[in-house]
Amino acid sequence: MGTSSPRRDFPVVGMVGGGQLARMTQQAAIGLGQTLRVLAVAPDEPAPLVTPDVVPGHADLAGLEALAVGCDAVTFDHEGVPQEHLRALVAKGVAVRPHPDALIHAQDKLVMRRRLAAMGLPIPAFAEITSPEQVAEFGEAHGWPVVLKAARGGYDGRGVWFLRSADSADGTDSADGTSAGAPVRSLVAELLAAGTPLLVEEAVAMRRELAAQVARSPFGQAAAWPVVETVQEDGQCVQVLAPAPGLAEERALEAQGIALRIAHELDVTGLLAVELFETDAGLLINELAMRPHNSGHWTIEGARTSQFEQHLRAVLDYPLGTTTMTAPVVVMANVLGAEKTPEMTVDERIHHLFARFPEVKVHLYAKGERPLRKVGHVTVLGTDVAALAEVRRKAALAADWLSTGEWSDGWSVHSGADVAELGERA
Amino acid sequence: MGTSSPRRDFPVVGMVGGGQLARMTQQAAIGLGQTLRVLAVAPDEPAPLVTPDVVPGHADLAGLEALAVGCDAVTFDHEGVPQEHLRALVAKGVAVRPHPDALIHAQDKLVMRRRLAAMGLPIPAFAEITSPEQVAEFGEAHGWPVVLKAARGGYDGRGVWFLRSADSADGTDSADGTSAGAPVRSLVAELLAAGTPLLVEEAVAMRRELAAQVARSPFGQAAAWPVVETVQEDGQCVQVLAPAPGLAEERALEAQGIALRIAHELDVTGLLAVELFETDAGLLINELAMRPHNSGHWTIEGARTSQFEQHLRAVLDYPLGTTTMTAPVVVMANVLGAEKTPEMTVDERIHHLFARFPEVKVHLYAKGERPLRKVGHVTVLGTDVAALAEVRRKAALAADWLSTGEWSDGWSVHSGADVAELGERA
Ligand SMILES: Nc1ncnc2c1ncn2[C@@H]1O[C@H](COP(=O)(O)OP(=O)(O)O)[C@@H](O)[C@H]1O
Ligand SMILES: Nc1ncnc2c1ncn2[C@@H]1O[C@H](COP(=O)(O)OP(=O)(O)O)[C@@H](O)[C@H]1O
Ligand SMILES: [Mg+2]
Ligand SMILES: [Mg+2]
Repeated sequence: MGTSSPRRDFPVVGMVGGGQLARMTQQAAIGLGQTLRVLAVAPDEPAPLVTPDVVPGHADLAGLEALAVGCDAVTFDHEGVPQEHLRALVAKGVAVRPHPDALIHAQDKLVMRRRLAAMGLPIPAFAEITSPEQVAEFGEAHGWPVVLKAARGGYDGRGVWFLRSADSADGTDSADGTSAGAPVRSLVAELLAAGTPLLVEEAVAMRRELAAQVARSPFGQAAAWPVVETVQEDGQCVQVLAPAPGLAEERALEAQGIALRIAHELDVTGLLAVELFETDAGLLINELAMRPHNSGHWTIEGARTSQFEQHLRAVLDYPLGTTTMTAPVVVMANVLGAEKTPEMTVDERIHHLFARFPEVKVHLYAKGERPLRKVGHVTVLGTDVAALAEVRRKAALAADWLSTGEWSDGWSVHSGADVAELGERA
Repeated sequence: MGTSSPRRDFPVVGMVGGGQLARMTQQAAIGLGQTLRVLAVAPDEPAPLVTPDVVPGHADLAGLEALAVGCDAVTFDHEGVPQEHLRALVAKGVAVRPHPDALIHAQDKLVMRRRLAAMGLPIPAFAEITSPEQVAEFGEAHGWPVVLKAARGGYDGRGVWFLRSADSADGTDSADGTSAGAPVRSLVAELLAAGTPLLVEEAVAMRRELAAQVARSPFGQAAAWPVVETVQEDGQCVQVLAPAPGLAEERALEAQGIALRIAHELDVTGLLAVELFETDAGLLINELAMRPHNSGHWTIEGARTSQFEQHLRAVLDYPLGTTTMTAPVVVMANVLGAEKTPEMTVDERIHHLFARFPEVKVHLYAKGERPLRKVGHVTVLGTDVAALAEVRRKAALAADWLSTGEWSDGWSVHSGADVAELGERA
């Protein structure tokens, strides 16, 4: 149909990027009668597959300007957008949400750390790195291991290296050959030579990771969802537990307070996710995202207003929606990769999954597969907080099955003790 | 982007018609990783506005054939599709779901009545009408008033006439000038001359109207949602109450049993909605729909599996999803028309609605407005069956506000006793 002309009765929101976040935002936009226009590099990305209003192009000035024409607001599926282009849009009167002054804190971990430090918020000890020596100095001062990070461009643990000592680096950066086991000095020198801005942090001894998600509108209204636990494996989120199990109420309020304060002081518009470490001594802030976030996918079924609807409401300055949960416990599990096997297509796997678990909600992003790439997620709701272990197990089984074509509990249609049965026993 | 090439890892479902049912099916298709392809007359219909895979055209053979190319199943947003064309598709091996042999019972009220009568199911007394005299005869035999119906093509009460006596017709057919107050003889003669197949029914003295919705897959699996009450005004559904308040369990089971039996015996694939009259003597079947149905919109937020997801699962022969409710009481209210006033755009109305009721879920179809046309709906969930009256009131207020720009309780931002307050008292 080409780029369909928007009905001017209803708003048009432009989103930079055509990934799964834009794809799921399209579901919410449809409900609200809106048009979601995406700036996408390829027509077979997750979002352009499902919205007719696609501006082909990169997040360069030409692409952004084309996207912005006729949009009531421009917002983001990812942070990989140069500040100067966003400022050029703002100068032209485009409602860029969040404003680049806020967004920079989700784009640059060093800018973020400095700002949060200035606000007196709890963060790990950190230092900018401009020479390999500084890493060793930081390690001597704060103790090993330390965590080296690219200040910009990292995601899913790509751009994060655990350094056991001045000599040895453990890469979580599986995508990048420079990492594992490389001597620290040459890793750092190589990254700096490539122009990667770096920082180093103390390796936090944490109990677990949490995320506090809020939305804030230009008018200044804000709303918070319950704080969740994000379960990580190899620097990547595998599960989200809502609400964070056993989290003391004052600590939950503290996390929400931190997120609301950051949203307010940084003048964030749209969604803000604050990734947190919970330690024996309290909370430390890890990083910020200013867009729908993996830690909020559970809200599609698990909260009265999903993060995608809320993001649209917030960037358009609508009053925000109710954030209460729809069930006492909700677990989201990422589908990481979807290896094809000759025996069974992904579609056949869905058949088997639905046959075993008619209650599991499936979200597939129609992405080409690549090992450990997020190609979808599943959500499972529990009627009782006590059922958390069972709900988690079901979510993990479902996500693993979609990813590998194998039931990690050995279940088979012909043999199988079923989780439903186990659930009844529990 | 034009018609994007489907990823063959994921199914493609073709839907005949681009209305709001296709639009909401697109939301479900996105979640499942599928491609929804719609056959639509105009690019600014509700569904083509939100899916890139649009086949422009009418439900004629050329349109249907173009739609079907590469589809895993072809299904329906509306029933206005000639049987012979569907049979031609079936002959070519297209998976038409439901099969035309089943669909005819949702297309032709006379065929439906005869089939249900043959099955021994409870229906109102009826007769085919081929001359004006037969109406008078039916009225003499069964008593006045009687209900005259076009066997094909009616919807939202268009094509239904209440006849008080042999002389006087009360049209619910507001769209059609031939009706109100016209002498029965000339109304019937006119309709017959125009080639409209007619039937007449006893006017059922009913307590209320119900709907039983089920899904059935080609494999033969079936699943039923709780039976709902559909509240009608002037022959059009204004609210749906889930579950039907105060419905005796055996009657609910009877209604579900009727729907499951019809689905089975007619070999329905996809969704089946059975509209029912509840009388003092029991249930009578009014009509059948074999697609997502207005009486099932509440399932988007109100059930673990929405009717739109379930329809896709059913027509693709996936195992069906859990149909349990997400809240004890759910009310859906249609937004009928959306008169523009010079003071306020529809978009501004949404702002005010969200400000007053952050918990109301809004669905807008991005349709051009026309008096009493269904342009959207709202859904409100209640945490307690006892709160039904309050939930209904909130849904009605919200739907009326979107439609008229007036709060029917006189509320204003500046004065207002709020429903939230009233709710606490209740
Ligand atoms: N200072 C730290 N101490 C311990 N673990 C850390 C630290 N920083 C990051 N990590 C771990 O690495 C993961 C990814 O780091 P993060 O800075 O969030 O990068 P990304 O941008 O890839 O999400 C975190 O979720 C956490 O598990
Ligand atoms: N036999 C009848 N007796 C009483 N009311 C009827 C009868 N048939 C239809 N109605 C009323 O008219 C409405 C519309 O009739 P229906 O046959 O369902 O037409 P439509 O196809 O327009 O939905 C019904 O929902 C009901 O309120
Ligand atoms: Mg992170
Ligand atoms: Mg009807």
